[in-house]
Amino acid sequence: MSSSAFTPKNPLFHARVTESFDRQRAMHSLGIHIARLAAGEIELAMPYDEAFTQQHGLVHAGVLTTALDSACGYAAFSLMPAEAEVLTVEFKTSLLAPAKGERFAFRARVVKSGRTLTFCEASAFAIEAGAEKQVATMSATLMAMMPKPT
Amino acid sequence: MSSSAFTPKNPLFHARVTESFDRQRAMHSLGIHIARLAAGEIELAMPYDEAFTQQHGLVHAGVLTTALDSACGYAAFSLMPAEAEVLTVEFKTSLLAPAKGERFAFRARVVKSGRTLTFCEASAFAIEAGAEKQVATMSATLMAMMPKPT
Amino acid sequence: MSSSAFTPKNPLFHARVTESFDRQRAMHSLGIHIARLAAGEIELAMPYDEAFTQQHGLVHAGVLTTALDSACGYAAFSLMPAEAEVLTVEFKTSLLAPAKGERFAFRARVVKSGRTLTFCEASAFAIEAGAEKQVATMSATLMAMMPKPT
Amino acid sequence: MSSSAFTPKNPLFHARVTESFDRQRAMHSLGIHIARLAAGEIELAMPYDEAFTQQHGLVHAGVLTTALDSACGYAAFSLMPAEAEVLTVEFKTSLLAPAKGERFAFRARVVKSGRTLTFCEASAFAIEAGAEKQVATMSATLMAMMPKPT
Repeated sequence: MSSSAFTPKNPLFHARVTESFDRQRAMHSLGIHIARLAAGEIELAMPYDEAFTQQHGLVHAGVLTTALDSACGYAAFSLMPAEAEVLTVEFKTSLLAPAKGERFAFRARVVKSGRTLTFCEASAFAIEAGAEKQVATMSATLMAMMPKPT
Repeated sequence: MSSSAFTPKNPLFHARVTESFDRQRAMHSLGIHIARLAAGEIELAMPYDEAFTQQHGLVHAGVLTTALDSACGYAAFSLMPAEAEVLTVEFKTSLLAPAKGERFAFRARVVKSGRTLTFCEASAFAIEAGAEKQVATMSATLMAMMPKPT
Repeated sequence: MSSSAFTPKNPLFHARVTESFDRQRAMHSLGIHIARLAAGEIELAMPYDEAFTQQHGLVHAGVLTTALDSACGYAAFSLMPAEAEVLTVEFKTSLLAPAKGERFAFRARVVKSGRTLTFCEASAFAIEAGAEKQVATMSATLMAMMPKPT
Repeated sequence: MSSSAFTPKNPLFHARVTESFDRQRAMHSLGIHIARLAAGEIELAMPYDEAFTQQHGLVHAGVLTTALDSACGYAAFSLMPAEAEVLTVEFKTSLLAPAKGERFAFRARVVKSGRTLTFCEASAFAIEAGAEKQVATMSATLMAMMPKPT
Protein backbone atom coordinates (compact mmCIF):
# COMPACT_ATOMS: atom_id res chain seq x y z
CA MET A 1 0.00 0.00 0.00
CA SER A 2 2.99 2.35 -0.10
CA SER A 3 2.37 3.01 -3.79
CA SER A 4 -1.06 3.28 -5.41
CA ALA A 5 -2.80 3.23 -8.77
CA PHE A 6 -4.22 6.72 -8.17
CA THR A 7 -2.81 10.19 -8.72
CA PRO A 8 -4.01 12.46 -5.90
CA LYS A 9 -5.34 15.90 -6.89
CA ASN A 10 -3.94 17.26 -3.62
CA PRO A 11 -0.20 16.43 -3.21
CA LEU A 12 -0.57 17.18 0.53
CA PHE A 13 -3.35 14.60 0.92
CA HIS A 14 -1.48 12.77 3.68
CA ALA A 15 -1.49 15.77 6.03
CA ARG A 16 -5.08 16.63 5.05
CA VAL A 17 -6.39 13.12 5.81
CA THR A 18 -4.58 12.73 9.14
CA GLU A 19 -5.67 16.20 10.29
CA SER A 20 -9.34 15.50 9.48
CA PHE A 21 -9.14 12.00 10.99
CA ASP A 22 -7.76 13.50 14.22
CA ARG A 23 -10.86 15.70 14.44
CA GLN A 24 -13.14 12.62 14.43
CA ARG A 25 -13.77 12.29 18.17
CA ALA A 26 -15.43 8.92 17.53
CA MET A 27 -12.09 7.50 16.33
CA HIS A 28 -10.41 8.47 19.62
CA SER A 29 -13.27 7.10 21.70
CA LEU A 30 -13.13 3.77 19.86
CA GLY A 31 -9.31 3.61 19.90
CA ILE A 32 -9.06 3.61 16.10
CA HIS A 33 -5.92 4.92 14.39
CA ILE A 34 -4.47 5.07 10.88
CA ALA A 35 -2.08 2.17 10.28
CA ARG A 36 -1.29 2.92 6.60
CA LEU A 37 -2.25 5.57 4.08
CA ALA A 38 -1.72 5.96 0.35
CA ALA A 39 -3.63 7.79 -2.38
CA GLY A 40 -7.01 6.05 -2.61
CA GLU A 41 -6.16 3.44 0.04
CA ILE A 42 -6.12 3.32 3.84
CA GLU A 43 -5.85 0.84 6.68
CA LEU A 44 -7.24 1.56 10.13
CA ALA A 45 -6.52 -0.45 13.30
CA MET A 46 -8.67 -0.95 16.41
CA PRO A 47 -8.10 -2.98 19.59
CA TYR A 48 -10.86 -5.13 21.05
CA ASP A 49 -12.73 -3.07 23.66
CA GLU A 50 -15.43 -4.70 25.79
CA ALA A 51 -17.14 -1.30 26.03
CA PHE A 52 -18.28 -1.56 22.41
CA THR A 53 -19.63 -5.09 22.25
CA GLN A 54 -23.02 -6.60 21.55
CA GLN A 55 -24.88 -9.13 23.69
CA HIS A 56 -22.40 -11.99 23.10
CA GLY A 57 -19.25 -9.99 23.85
CA LEU A 58 -18.34 -9.56 20.17
CA VAL A 59 -17.62 -6.16 18.64
CA HIS A 60 -20.93 -4.53 17.68
CA ALA A 61 -21.61 -4.61 13.91
CA GLY A 62 -22.21 -0.85 14.10
CA VAL A 63 -18.75 -0.31 15.59
CA LEU A 64 -17.14 -2.30 12.78
CA THR A 65 -19.22 -0.15 10.43
CA THR A 66 -17.97 3.04 12.10
CA ALA A 67 -14.38 2.05 11.34
CA LEU A 68 -15.25 0.85 7.82
CA ASP A 69 -17.11 4.10 7.09
CA SER A 70 -14.17 6.24 8.23
CA ALA A 71 -11.82 4.03 6.19
CA CYS A 72 -13.95 4.48 3.05
CA GLY A 73 -14.38 8.19 3.74
CA TYR A 74 -10.66 8.85 4.05
CA ALA A 75 -9.72 6.62 1.10
CA ALA A 76 -12.11 8.78 -0.95
CA PHE A 77 -10.96 12.04 0.68
CA SER A 78 -7.31 11.30 -0.17
CA LEU A 79 -8.13 11.70 -3.88
CA MET A 80 -10.25 14.83 -3.59
CA PRO A 81 -9.07 18.37 -4.35
CA ALA A 82 -7.66 20.40 -1.42
CA GLU A 83 -10.80 22.52 -0.99
CA ALA A 84 -13.31 19.61 -0.90
CA GLU A 85 -15.06 18.17 2.12
CA VAL A 86 -16.16 14.53 2.14
CA LEU A 87 -19.63 13.25 3.03
CA THR A 88 -20.96 9.69 3.25
CA VAL A 89 -23.98 9.13 0.99
CA GLU A 90 -24.69 5.49 1.90
CA PHE A 91 -23.00 2.23 2.72
CA LYS A 92 -23.86 -1.43 3.02
CA THR A 93 -22.13 -3.74 5.50
CA SER A 94 -22.20 -7.54 5.18
CA LEU A 95 -21.35 -9.50 8.33
CA LEU A 96 -19.45 -12.57 7.14
CA ALA A 97 -18.32 -14.05 10.46
CA PRO A 98 -18.40 -13.33 14.22
CA ALA A 99 -16.15 -10.35 15.02
CA LYS A 100 -14.01 -12.20 17.56
CA GLY A 101 -10.44 -11.00 17.91
CA GLU A 102 -7.80 -9.19 19.98
CA ARG A 103 -7.61 -6.43 17.43
CA PHE A 104 -9.11 -5.48 14.08
CA ALA A 105 -7.88 -4.13 10.76
CA PHE A 106 -10.04 -2.19 8.28
CA ARG A 107 -8.80 -1.84 4.70
CA ALA A 108 -10.54 0.46 2.24
CA ARG A 109 -9.79 1.37 -1.35
CA VAL A 110 -11.36 3.59 -3.96
CA VAL A 111 -13.06 1.63 -6.74
CA LYS A 112 -14.11 4.64 -8.81
CA SER A 113 -13.30 8.28 -8.20
CA GLY A 114 -15.53 10.81 -9.94
CA ARG A 115 -15.82 14.58 -9.70
CA THR A 116 -18.81 14.44 -7.35
CA LEU A 117 -19.12 10.79 -6.26
CA THR A 118 -16.56 8.23 -5.15
CA PHE A 119 -17.25 4.51 -4.76
CA CYS A 120 -15.20 2.56 -2.19
CA GLU A 121 -14.93 -1.00 -0.94
CA ALA A 122 -13.58 -2.05 2.44
CA SER A 123 -13.07 -5.17 4.52
CA ALA A 124 -12.80 -5.74 8.26
CA PHE A 125 -10.44 -8.40 9.60
CA ALA A 126 -10.29 -9.89 13.10
CA ILE A 127 -6.79 -10.74 14.31
CA GLU A 128 -6.34 -13.43 16.93
CA ALA A 129 -3.15 -15.29 17.86
CA GLY A 130 -1.49 -13.79 14.79
CA ALA A 131 -4.12 -15.12 12.39
CA GLU A 132 -6.30 -12.81 10.35
CA LYS A 133 -9.92 -13.53 9.38
CA GLN A 134 -12.23 -11.45 7.18
CA VAL A 135 -15.35 -10.67 9.23
CA ALA A 136 -17.15 -7.94 7.28
CA THR A 137 -17.24 -6.09 3.96
CA MET A 138 -18.52 -2.63 3.06
CA SER A 139 -19.56 -1.07 -0.21
CA ALA A 140 -19.89 2.73 0.11
CA THR A 141 -20.71 5.89 -1.84
CA LEU A 142 -19.02 9.15 -0.80
CA MET A 143 -19.59 12.68 -2.03
CA ALA A 144 -17.23 15.62 -2.49
CA MET A 145 -18.68 18.88 -1.19
CA MET A 146 -17.06 21.88 -2.84
CA PRO A 147 -17.15 25.33 -1.21
CA LYS A 148 -19.84 27.58 -2.70
CA PRO A 149 -18.44 30.14 -5.19
CA THR A 150 -18.39 33.63 -3.60
CA MET B 1 -46.59 1.58 18.76
CA SER B 2 -48.34 0.17 21.81
CA SER B 3 -50.17 -2.33 19.64
CA SER B 4 -48.71 -4.07 16.61
CA ALA B 5 -49.63 -6.04 13.51
CA PHE B 6 -47.53 -9.00 14.65
CA THR B 7 -48.20 -11.93 16.94
CA PRO B 8 -45.02 -12.74 18.88
CA LYS B 9 -44.01 -16.42 19.10
CA ASN B 10 -42.61 -15.70 22.55
CA PRO B 11 -45.24 -14.07 24.83
CA LEU B 12 -42.38 -12.97 27.12
CA PHE B 13 -40.62 -11.13 24.28
CA HIS B 14 -40.53 -7.86 26.22
CA ALA B 15 -38.38 -9.28 29.03
CA ARG B 16 -36.24 -11.22 26.54
CA VAL B 17 -35.50 -8.11 24.42
CA THR B 18 -34.70 -5.83 27.34
CA GLU B 19 -32.45 -8.43 28.97
CA SER B 20 -30.46 -8.97 25.76
CA PHE B 21 -30.32 -5.21 25.08
CA ASP B 22 -28.90 -4.65 28.57
CA ARG B 23 -26.06 -7.04 27.73
CA GLN B 24 -25.02 -4.87 24.74
CA ARG B 25 -22.20 -2.90 26.32
CA ALA B 26 -22.07 -0.69 23.22
CA MET B 27 -25.58 0.60 24.04
CA HIS B 28 -24.46 1.71 27.52
CA SER B 29 -21.27 3.31 26.17
CA LEU B 30 -23.25 5.30 23.58
CA GLY B 31 -26.03 6.21 26.03
CA ILE B 32 -28.71 4.42 24.01
CA HIS B 33 -31.85 3.11 25.70
CA ILE B 34 -35.19 1.57 24.71
CA ALA B 35 -37.90 4.24 24.52
CA ARG B 36 -40.74 1.99 23.27
CA LEU B 37 -41.14 -1.68 22.46
CA ALA B 38 -43.90 -3.73 20.83
CA ALA B 39 -43.94 -6.99 18.90
CA GLY B 40 -41.96 -6.29 15.71
CA GLU B 41 -41.36 -2.62 16.54
CA ILE B 42 -38.95 -0.69 18.70
CA GLU B 43 -37.78 2.86 19.33
CA LEU B 44 -34.35 3.65 20.76
CA ALA B 45 -33.21 7.03 22.09
CA MET B 46 -29.70 8.54 22.25
CA PRO B 47 -28.44 11.91 23.47
CA TYR B 48 -25.90 13.90 21.47
CA ASP B 49 -22.42 13.04 22.74
CA GLU B 50 -19.38 14.92 21.43
CA ALA B 51 -17.30 11.78 22.09
CA PHE B 52 -18.91 10.02 19.12
CA THR B 53 -18.74 12.68 16.43
CA GLN B 54 -17.04 12.95 13.05
CA GLN B 55 -14.77 15.77 11.86
CA HIS B 56 -17.55 18.42 11.77
CA GLY B 57 -18.96 17.70 15.23
CA LEU B 58 -21.95 15.74 13.91
CA VAL B 59 -22.80 12.24 15.13
CA HIS B 60 -20.68 9.73 13.20
CA ALA B 61 -22.67 7.83 10.53
CA GLY B 62 -21.36 4.60 12.06
CA VAL B 63 -22.78 5.56 15.45
CA LEU B 64 -26.21 6.22 13.92
CA THR B 65 -25.80 2.83 12.25
CA THR B 66 -24.96 1.17 15.58
CA ALA B 67 -28.26 2.38 17.00
CA LEU B 68 -30.20 1.51 13.82
CA ASP B 69 -28.66 -1.99 13.76
CA SER B 70 -29.63 -2.65 17.38
CA ALA B 71 -33.11 -1.30 16.66
CA CYS B 72 -33.54 -3.63 13.66
CA GLY B 73 -32.03 -6.53 15.58
CA TYR B 74 -34.39 -6.20 18.53
CA ALA B 75 -37.45 -5.54 16.35
CA ALA B 76 -36.62 -8.86 14.64
CA PHE B 77 -35.75 -10.61 17.93
CA SER B 78 -39.11 -9.65 19.46
CA LEU B 79 -40.86 -11.96 16.96
CA MET B 80 -38.50 -14.91 17.28
CA PRO B 81 -39.15 -18.07 19.33
CA ALA B 82 -37.83 -18.08 22.91
CA GLU B 83 -34.85 -20.32 22.13
CA ALA B 84 -33.54 -18.30 19.14
CA GLU B 85 -30.58 -15.96 19.04
CA VAL B 86 -30.50 -13.07 16.57
CA LEU B 87 -27.64 -12.25 14.19
CA THR B 88 -27.25 -9.38 11.72
CA VAL B 89 -26.66 -10.60 8.15
CA GLU B 90 -26.27 -7.22 6.46
CA PHE B 91 -27.62 -3.68 6.47
CA LYS B 92 -27.53 -0.59 4.30
CA THR B 93 -27.63 2.91 5.74
CA SER B 94 -28.56 5.98 3.67
CA LEU B 95 -27.50 9.36 5.12
CA LEU B 96 -30.26 11.77 4.18
CA ALA B 97 -29.22 14.87 6.12
CA PRO B 98 -26.56 16.05 8.60
CA ALA B 99 -27.07 14.35 11.99
CA LYS B 100 -27.33 17.60 13.95
CA GLY B 101 -29.46 17.45 17.08
CA GLU B 102 -29.65 17.46 20.87
CA ARG B 103 -30.91 13.92 20.86
CA PHE B 104 -31.83 11.18 18.42
CA ALA B 105 -34.63 8.66 17.94
CA PHE B 106 -34.29 5.38 16.05
CA ARG B 107 -37.46 3.60 14.94
CA ALA B 108 -37.35 0.09 13.49
CA ARG B 109 -40.07 -2.26 12.36
CA VAL B 110 -40.19 -5.73 10.88
CA VAL B 111 -41.18 -5.77 7.21
CA LYS B 112 -41.17 -9.55 6.78
CA SER B 113 -40.61 -12.18 9.43
CA GLY B 114 -39.62 -15.63 8.18
CA ARG B 115 -38.52 -18.78 9.95
CA THR B 116 -34.83 -18.12 9.28
CA LEU B 117 -34.60 -14.55 7.95
CA THR B 118 -36.25 -11.32 9.04
CA PHE B 119 -36.26 -8.09 7.00
CA CYS B 120 -36.45 -4.78 8.88
CA GLU B 121 -36.55 -1.09 8.07
CA ALA B 122 -35.52 1.71 10.39
CA SER B 123 -35.16 5.48 10.42
CA ALA B 124 -33.01 7.84 12.48
CA PHE B 125 -34.38 11.21 13.53
CA ALA B 126 -32.49 14.21 14.93
CA ILE B 127 -34.43 16.23 17.51
CA GLU B 128 -33.58 19.88 18.03
CA ALA B 129 -35.64 22.54 19.76
CA GLY B 130 -38.57 20.12 19.79
CA ALA B 131 -38.50 19.58 16.01
CA GLU B 132 -37.79 16.18 14.53
CA LYS B 133 -35.93 15.59 11.25
CA GLN B 134 -35.28 12.29 9.47
CA VAL B 135 -31.51 11.99 8.99
CA ALA B 136 -30.92 8.35 8.00
CA THR B 137 -32.67 5.15 6.93
CA MET B 138 -31.63 1.52 7.25
CA SER B 139 -32.71 -1.61 5.42
CA ALA B 140 -31.49 -4.75 7.23
CA THR B 141 -31.54 -8.55 7.09
CA LEU B 142 -31.42 -10.49 10.38
CA MET B 143 -31.12 -14.21 11.00
CA ALA B 144 -32.54 -16.46 13.71
CA MET B 145 -29.97 -18.90 15.09
CA MET B 146 -31.62 -21.93 16.65
CA PRO B 147 -29.82 -24.11 19.19
CA LYS B 148 -28.39 -27.30 17.65
CA PRO B 149 -30.52 -30.38 18.38
CA THR B 150 -28.79 -32.59 21.00
CA MET C 1 -51.26 9.29 -4.95
CA SER C 2 -53.08 11.99 -6.88
CA SER C 3 -51.78 14.65 -4.51
CA SER C 4 -48.31 14.67 -3.01
CA ALA C 5 -46.20 16.23 -0.27
CA PHE C 6 -43.73 17.61 -2.83
CA THR C 7 -43.66 20.75 -4.93
CA PRO C 8 -42.14 19.94 -8.32
CA LYS C 9 -39.50 22.35 -9.68
CA ASN C 10 -40.78 21.59 -13.17
CA PRO C 11 -44.56 22.16 -13.47
CA LEU C 12 -44.51 20.07 -16.66
CA PHE C 13 -42.96 17.09 -14.84
CA HIS C 14 -45.76 14.76 -15.96
CA ALA C 15 -44.98 15.17 -19.66
CA ARG C 16 -41.24 15.06 -18.99
CA VAL C 17 -41.46 11.78 -17.04
CA THR C 18 -43.74 10.00 -19.50
CA GLU C 19 -41.63 11.12 -22.48
CA SER C 20 -38.41 9.83 -20.89
CA PHE C 21 -40.10 6.63 -19.72
CA ASP C 22 -41.29 5.98 -23.28
CA ARG C 23 -37.67 6.14 -24.45
CA GLN C 24 -36.72 3.28 -22.08
CA ARG C 25 -36.81 0.37 -24.52
CA ALA C 26 -36.40 -2.03 -21.58
CA MET C 27 -39.82 -0.93 -20.24
CA HIS C 28 -41.51 -1.85 -23.54
CA SER C 29 -39.67 -5.18 -23.75
CA LEU C 30 -40.74 -6.09 -20.21
CA GLY C 31 -44.31 -4.83 -20.71
CA ILE C 32 -44.00 -2.22 -17.94
CA HIS C 33 -46.15 0.91 -18.01
CA ILE C 34 -46.92 3.87 -15.74
CA ALA C 35 -50.10 3.25 -13.73
CA ARG C 36 -50.01 6.46 -11.63
CA LEU C 37 -47.76 9.49 -11.39
CA ALA C 38 -47.57 12.39 -8.97
CA ALA C 39 -44.74 14.70 -7.90
CA GLY C 40 -42.23 12.47 -6.10
CA GLU C 41 -44.37 9.32 -6.43
CA ILE C 42 -44.99 6.77 -9.15
CA GLU C 43 -46.59 3.37 -9.66
CA LEU C 44 -45.55 1.03 -12.46
CA ALA C 45 -47.42 -2.10 -13.58
CA MET C 46 -46.08 -5.27 -15.24
CA PRO C 47 -47.82 -8.48 -16.32
CA TYR C 48 -46.30 -11.89 -15.57
CA ASP C 49 -44.20 -12.96 -18.57
CA GLU C 50 -42.63 -16.42 -18.68
CA ALA C 51 -39.85 -14.97 -20.85
CA PHE C 52 -38.38 -13.16 -17.85
CA THR C 53 -38.40 -15.86 -15.19
CA GLN C 54 -35.73 -17.64 -13.18
CA GLN C 55 -35.25 -21.41 -12.83
CA HIS C 56 -38.50 -21.97 -10.86
CA GLY C 57 -40.76 -19.99 -13.19
CA LEU C 58 -40.92 -16.95 -10.89
CA VAL C 59 -40.10 -13.44 -12.12
CA HIS C 60 -36.31 -12.96 -12.01
CA ALA C 61 -35.17 -10.77 -9.10
CA GLY C 62 -33.27 -8.65 -11.61
CA VAL C 63 -36.46 -8.01 -13.58
CA LEU C 64 -38.26 -6.87 -10.43
CA THR C 65 -35.22 -4.67 -9.82
CA THR C 66 -35.44 -3.23 -13.34
CA ALA C 67 -38.99 -2.06 -12.64
CA LEU C 68 -38.12 -0.84 -9.12
CA ASP C 69 -35.11 1.09 -10.47
CA SER C 70 -37.20 2.82 -13.15
CA ALA C 71 -39.85 3.58 -10.52
CA CYS C 72 -37.27 5.16 -8.20
CA GLY C 73 -35.62 6.97 -11.09
CA TYR C 74 -38.85 8.57 -12.30
CA ALA C 75 -40.08 9.40 -8.80
CA ALA C 76 -36.79 11.29 -8.37
CA PHE C 77 -36.90 12.78 -11.88
CA SER C 78 -40.40 14.19 -11.30
CA LEU C 79 -38.95 16.60 -8.71
CA MET C 80 -35.89 17.68 -10.70
CA PRO C 81 -35.56 20.94 -12.64
CA ALA C 82 -36.52 20.85 -16.34
CA GLU C 83 -32.93 20.81 -17.60
CA ALA C 84 -31.72 17.92 -15.39
CA GLU C 85 -31.08 14.33 -16.40
CA VAL C 86 -31.42 11.52 -13.85
CA LEU C 87 -28.82 8.83 -13.16
CA THR C 88 -28.95 5.87 -10.77
CA VAL C 89 -26.06 5.88 -8.29
CA GLU C 90 -26.86 2.64 -6.47
CA PHE C 91 -29.75 0.57 -5.17
CA LYS C 92 -30.34 -2.33 -2.85
CA THR C 93 -33.13 -4.84 -3.39
CA SER C 94 -34.43 -7.15 -0.64
CA LEU C 95 -36.38 -10.21 -1.79
CA LEU C 96 -39.09 -10.73 0.82
CA ALA C 97 -41.15 -13.48 -0.80
CA PRO C 98 -41.38 -15.51 -4.04
CA ALA C 99 -42.46 -13.26 -6.92
CA LYS C 100 -45.48 -15.36 -7.87
CA GLY C 101 -48.37 -13.48 -9.45
CA GLU C 102 -50.43 -12.70 -12.53
CA ARG C 103 -49.22 -9.15 -12.50
CA PHE C 104 -47.01 -6.86 -10.45
CA ALA C 105 -47.14 -3.34 -9.09
CA PHE C 106 -44.09 -1.22 -8.23
CA ARG C 107 -44.57 1.82 -6.00
CA ALA C 108 -41.75 4.31 -5.46
CA ARG C 109 -41.60 7.56 -3.53
CA VAL C 110 -38.95 10.15 -2.84
CA VAL C 111 -37.69 10.09 0.76
CA LYS C 112 -35.32 13.05 0.44
CA SER C 113 -34.83 15.31 -2.53
CA GLY C 114 -31.59 17.31 -2.59
CA ARG C 115 -29.97 19.51 -5.21
CA THR C 116 -27.63 16.75 -6.42
CA LEU C 117 -28.83 13.54 -4.77
CA THR C 118 -32.30 12.07 -4.28
CA PHE C 119 -33.09 9.12 -2.00
CA CYS C 120 -36.06 6.91 -2.90
CA GLU C 121 -37.81 3.85 -1.52
CA ALA C 122 -39.92 1.42 -3.50
CA SER C 123 -41.84 -1.80 -3.04
CA ALA C 124 -42.83 -4.55 -5.46
CA PHE C 125 -46.19 -6.30 -5.05
CA ALA C 126 -47.38 -9.53 -6.66
CA ILE C 127 -51.09 -9.61 -7.48
CA GLU C 128 -52.89 -12.93 -7.72
CA ALA C 129 -56.61 -13.58 -7.64
CA GLY C 130 -57.13 -9.95 -6.60
CA ALA C 131 -54.87 -10.23 -3.55
CA GLU C 132 -51.71 -8.17 -3.27
CA LYS C 133 -48.52 -9.34 -1.55
CA GLN C 134 -45.30 -7.37 -0.98
CA VAL C 135 -42.46 -9.36 -2.55
CA ALA C 136 -39.51 -6.94 -2.66
CA THR C 137 -38.27 -3.58 -1.43
CA MET C 138 -35.70 -1.19 -2.86
CA SER C 139 -33.68 1.62 -1.32
CA ALA C 140 -32.02 3.77 -4.03
CA THR C 141 -29.84 6.83 -4.56
CA LEU C 142 -30.35 8.89 -7.71
CA MET C 143 -28.33 11.82 -9.06
CA ALA C 144 -29.36 14.90 -11.01
CA MET C 145 -27.01 15.64 -13.90
CA MET C 146 -27.15 19.28 -14.91
CA PRO C 147 -26.03 20.45 -18.36
CA LYS C 148 -22.49 21.88 -18.36
CA PRO C 149 -22.44 25.70 -18.44
CA THR C 150 -21.35 26.93 -21.91
CA MET D 1 -10.67 -19.09 -13.15
CA SER D 2 -10.00 -22.70 -14.15
CA SER D 3 -8.91 -23.54 -10.61
CA SER D 4 -10.49 -22.17 -7.46
CA ALA D 5 -9.89 -21.75 -3.74
CA PHE D 6 -13.09 -23.67 -2.94
CA THR D 7 -13.88 -27.35 -2.59
CA PRO D 8 -17.37 -27.99 -3.95
CA LYS D 9 -19.69 -30.17 -1.85
CA ASN D 10 -21.22 -31.48 -5.07
CA PRO D 11 -18.56 -32.88 -7.45
CA LEU D 12 -21.11 -32.61 -10.27
CA PHE D 13 -21.65 -28.88 -9.64
CA HIS D 14 -20.82 -28.00 -13.25
CA ALA D 15 -23.73 -29.98 -14.69
CA ARG D 16 -26.02 -28.80 -11.89
CA VAL D 17 -25.25 -25.12 -12.49
CA THR D 18 -25.57 -25.25 -16.28
CA GLU D 19 -28.82 -27.21 -16.08
CA SER D 20 -30.39 -24.70 -13.66
CA PHE D 21 -29.04 -21.75 -15.65
CA ASP D 22 -30.64 -23.16 -18.80
CA ARG D 23 -34.02 -23.13 -17.02
CA GLN D 24 -33.72 -19.35 -16.39
CA ARG D 25 -35.85 -18.08 -19.26
CA ALA D 26 -34.69 -14.53 -18.47
CA MET D 27 -31.11 -15.50 -19.41
CA HIS D 28 -32.25 -16.66 -22.86
CA SER D 29 -34.38 -13.55 -23.40
CA LEU D 30 -31.46 -11.28 -22.50
CA GLY D 31 -28.93 -13.33 -24.52
CA ILE D 32 -26.81 -14.14 -21.45
CA HIS D 33 -24.67 -17.28 -21.38
CA ILE D 34 -22.02 -18.84 -19.15
CA ALA D 35 -18.51 -17.98 -20.37
CA ARG D 36 -16.55 -19.67 -17.56
CA LEU D 37 -17.41 -21.68 -14.48
CA ALA D 38 -15.39 -22.95 -11.53
CA ALA D 39 -16.27 -23.83 -7.94
CA GLY D 40 -17.34 -20.55 -6.33
CA GLU D 41 -16.66 -18.47 -9.45
CA ILE D 42 -18.50 -17.73 -12.68
CA GLU D 43 -18.36 -15.40 -15.66
CA LEU D 44 -21.43 -14.56 -17.73
CA ALA D 45 -21.45 -12.81 -21.11
CA MET D 46 -24.14 -10.64 -22.73
CA PRO D 47 -24.25 -8.78 -26.03
CA TYR D 48 -25.54 -5.21 -26.25
CA ASP D 49 -29.25 -5.32 -27.13
CA GLU D 50 -31.16 -2.12 -27.84
CA ALA D 51 -34.32 -3.84 -26.57
CA PHE D 52 -33.05 -3.63 -22.98
CA THR D 53 -31.83 -0.05 -22.77
CA GLN D 54 -32.80 2.97 -20.70
CA GLN D 55 -33.67 6.44 -22.01
CA HIS D 56 -30.14 7.22 -23.28
CA GLY D 57 -29.63 3.96 -25.17
CA LEU D 58 -27.39 2.45 -22.47
CA VAL D 59 -28.08 -0.97 -20.95
CA HIS D 60 -30.66 -0.56 -18.17
CA ALA D 61 -29.14 -0.79 -14.67
CA GLY D 62 -31.74 -3.43 -13.85
CA VAL D 63 -30.59 -5.57 -16.78
CA LEU D 64 -26.98 -5.39 -15.58
CA THR D 65 -28.35 -6.34 -12.18
CA THR D 66 -30.22 -9.32 -13.65
CA ALA D 67 -26.94 -10.70 -15.02
CA LEU D 68 -25.01 -9.86 -11.82
CA ASP D 69 -27.70 -11.55 -9.69
CA SER D 70 -27.59 -14.73 -11.77
CA ALA D 71 -23.78 -14.66 -11.64
CA CYS D 72 -23.82 -14.36 -7.82
CA GLY D 73 -26.56 -16.97 -7.54
CA TYR D 74 -24.68 -19.57 -9.59
CA ALA D 75 -21.31 -18.82 -7.97
CA ALA D 76 -23.04 -19.56 -4.65
CA PHE D 77 -24.98 -22.55 -6.03
CA SER D 78 -21.76 -24.18 -7.30
CA LEU D 79 -20.64 -24.67 -3.69
CA MET D 80 -23.94 -25.95 -2.31
CA PRO D 81 -24.80 -29.60 -1.64
CA ALA D 82 -26.54 -31.51 -4.45
CA GLU D 83 -29.99 -31.35 -2.84
CA ALA D 84 -30.00 -27.58 -2.16
CA GLU D 85 -31.86 -24.89 -4.06
CA VAL D 86 -30.51 -21.32 -4.17
CA LEU D 87 -32.48 -18.18 -3.36
CA THR D 88 -31.42 -14.53 -3.51
CA VAL D 89 -31.89 -12.75 -0.16
CA GLU D 90 -30.75 -9.27 -1.20
CA PHE D 91 -28.22 -7.46 -3.35
CA LYS D 92 -26.84 -3.98 -3.80
CA THR D 93 -25.68 -2.67 -7.17
CA SER D 94 -23.40 0.37 -7.54
CA LEU D 95 -23.35 2.03 -10.96
CA LEU D 96 -19.77 3.19 -11.47
CA ALA D 97 -19.89 4.33 -15.11
CA PRO D 98 -22.27 4.45 -18.11
CA ALA D 99 -22.92 0.92 -19.41
CA LYS D 100 -21.78 1.64 -22.96
CA GLY D 101 -20.33 -1.31 -24.85
CA GLU D 102 -20.71 -3.87 -27.62
CA ARG D 103 -20.84 -6.65 -25.09
CA PHE D 104 -20.65 -7.16 -21.35
CA ALA D 105 -18.94 -9.52 -18.93
CA PHE D 106 -20.17 -10.31 -15.41
CA ARG D 107 -17.74 -11.91 -12.95
CA ALA D 108 -18.92 -13.20 -9.59
CA ARG D 109 -17.11 -15.00 -6.80
CA VAL D 110 -18.07 -16.34 -3.41
CA VAL D 111 -16.64 -14.29 -0.53
CA LYS D 112 -17.98 -16.48 2.27
CA SER D 113 -19.83 -19.75 1.97
CA GLY D 114 -21.82 -20.83 5.03
CA ARG D 115 -24.27 -23.64 5.63
CA THR D 116 -27.32 -21.42 5.15
CA LEU D 117 -26.02 -18.13 3.75
CA THR D 118 -23.47 -17.33 1.06
CA PHE D 119 -21.98 -13.87 0.43
CA CYS D 120 -20.87 -13.03 -3.11
CA GLU D 121 -19.30 -10.10 -4.93
CA ALA D 122 -19.55 -9.42 -8.64
CA SER D 123 -18.50 -6.84 -11.21
CA ALA D 124 -19.93 -5.87 -14.59
CA PHE D 125 -17.58 -4.85 -17.40
CA ALA D 126 -18.41 -3.11 -20.69
CA ILE D 127 -16.28 -4.21 -23.63
CA GLU D 128 -15.80 -1.85 -26.55
CA ALA D 129 -13.16 -2.02 -29.28
CA GLY D 130 -11.37 -4.71 -27.26
CA ALA D 131 -11.07 -2.54 -24.14
CA GLU D 132 -12.78 -3.52 -20.91
CA LYS D 133 -14.20 -1.05 -18.38
CA GLN D 134 -15.75 -1.79 -14.98
CA VAL D 135 -19.27 -0.29 -14.98
CA ALA D 136 -20.98 -1.80 -11.94
CA THR D 137 -20.40 -3.83 -8.78
CA MET D 138 -22.73 -6.03 -6.77
CA SER D 139 -22.62 -7.28 -3.20
CA ALA D 140 -25.16 -10.09 -2.64
CA THR D 141 -26.50 -12.51 -0.02
CA LEU D 142 -27.80 -15.89 -1.19
CA MET D 143 -29.54 -18.63 0.77
CA ALA D 144 -29.45 -22.41 0.47
CA MET D 145 -32.91 -23.98 0.69
CA MET D 146 -32.72 -27.59 1.77
CA PRO D 147 -35.57 -30.04 1.08
CA LYS D 148 -37.83 -30.56 4.09
CA PRO D 149 -37.10 -33.84 5.93
CA THR D 150 -39.87 -36.42 5.24
